[in-house]
Amino acid sequence: MPIVNIQITREGTAPGRDAPTDEEKAALIKGVSEVLLNVLNKPLDSTFVVIEEVPLENWGWGGLPVPELRRRLAAKK
Amino acid sequence: MPIVNIQITREGTAPGRDAPTDEEKAALIKGVSEVLLNVLNKPLDSTFVVIEEVPLENWGWGGLPVPELRRRLAAKK
Amino acid sequence: MPIVNIQITREGTAPGRDAPTDEEKAALIKGVSEVLLNVLNKPLDSTFVVIEEVPLENWGWGGLPVPELRRRLAAKK
Amino acid sequence: MPIVNIQITREGTAPGRDAPTDEEKAALIKGVSEVLLNVLNKPLDSTFVVIEEVPLENWGWGGLPVPELRRRLAAKK
Amino acid sequence: MPIVNIQITREGTAPGRDAPTDEEKAALIKGVSEVLLNVLNKPLDSTFVVIEEVPLENWGWGGLPVPELRRRLAAKK
Amino acid sequence: MPIVNIQITREGTAPGRDAPTDEEKAALIKGVSEVLLNVLNKPLDSTFVVIEEVPLENWGWGGLPVPELRRRLAAKK
Repeated sequence: MPIVNIQITREGTAPGRDAPTDEEKAALIKGVSEVLLNVLNKPLDSTFVVIEEVPLENWGWGGLPVPELRRRLAAKK
Repeated sequence: MPIVNIQITREGTAPGRDAPTDEEKAALIKGVSEVLLNVLNKPLDSTFVVIEEVPLENWGWGGLPVPELRRRLAAKK
Repeated sequence: MPIVNIQITREGTAPGRDAPTDEEKAALIKGVSEVLLNVLNKPLDSTFVVIEEVPLENWGWGGLPVPELRRRLAAKK
Repeated sequence: MPIVNIQITREGTAPGRDAPTDEEKAALIKGVSEVLLNVLNKPLDSTFVVIEEVPLENWGWGGLPVPELRRRLAAKK
Repeated sequence: MPIVNIQITREGTAPGRDAPTDEEKAALIKGVSEVLLNVLNKPLDSTFVVIEEVPLENWGWGGLPVPELRRRLAAKK
Repeated sequence: MPIVNIQITREGTAPGRDAPTDEEKAALIKGVSEVLLNVLNKPLDSTFVVIEEVPLENWGWGGLPVPELRRRLAAKK
């Protein structure tokens, strides 16, 4: 009866999108549940998956919010 | 000083509602805090409760997002 | 299909114990699951409860680890 | 590679604001990441910080949702 | 930069084991990280996975700790 | 009333240690609580900090458990 909590930034994977699509979320849920089934024999019915979408400015890496981090990385190029 | 984190799907308990009501949230907070008091003698003042409402399509069970899972269960009946 | 995560300090509720007993954990699980049933009509079968026991020195309140906090509170009396 | 999850109530620190500002979030991320660097020598690049803003009515303390708790504390004065 | 938190019961998948093996943990980490790569194009280098092993008596389902739940399910057969 | 959850690998910061020391944990708790005070005016008394120490083999980065990741990084040098 595993619980998988996935935290991701809320952003799209293609131009014009600002969040993961329902199809992408479904693929995450399916993929992760199957990993638990394949590795630990956990039945699909016993696995809960929760996806949390985190606004970019609420996510920090390298001591910076992600939007600022990306600006700096882009400026370096 | 317990911390209780409650993750639930964001949906109503009656027609015309699409989320738990403030009264229901208050009842969850009260009920859970009292369990900690009664079982472990934790004073109400030392218990934090956080309720996270998760969109249905972000919650997976049985390898499927909840909306799809329910469609399949309904179709079986 | 709620998920309830309960974080508590690892300590006993009576002399000679250094952790919650299995009976206390069972009472927490039962109590919290029933709150979800009573307030939001969530079937017991769809609720997961996870209890995390946190060592006292890993828990901070008031800017201090709990053992130090308690020493100071005791000294004030 | 620490992960720091910060849960706070969604509210402003000054009149006219109803949420932490982006500057405040950036300061939280910077401050917390530096604590990990200073105390445990964790490079900034290896620390993730996630800020979760929780609606006031979803946060409980003392067995009450925060808005009700504050009403009662204000009435006592 | 996803964070995946996997909570599982601490138990073995074969006789004589009382916990997941290091190989199983490595397979979980690899599998879940690849799902994030395949579905959302998240580079492996940006994904953190944390596995939490929860003692059976700290996990509740159906209002019961897992050991008791299994005793009842076994008695029904 | 912030809740700060810090997940770190269980390992020492100096030879002969295999975990953070109590002094380091106290410094983490103090430092993080002060960040919340300084940035958001949260009183120290209202902040909870929980430190979770995660075994190295339960932490994944780059699709690998940390011990294996480090072996590969060391081999590259």
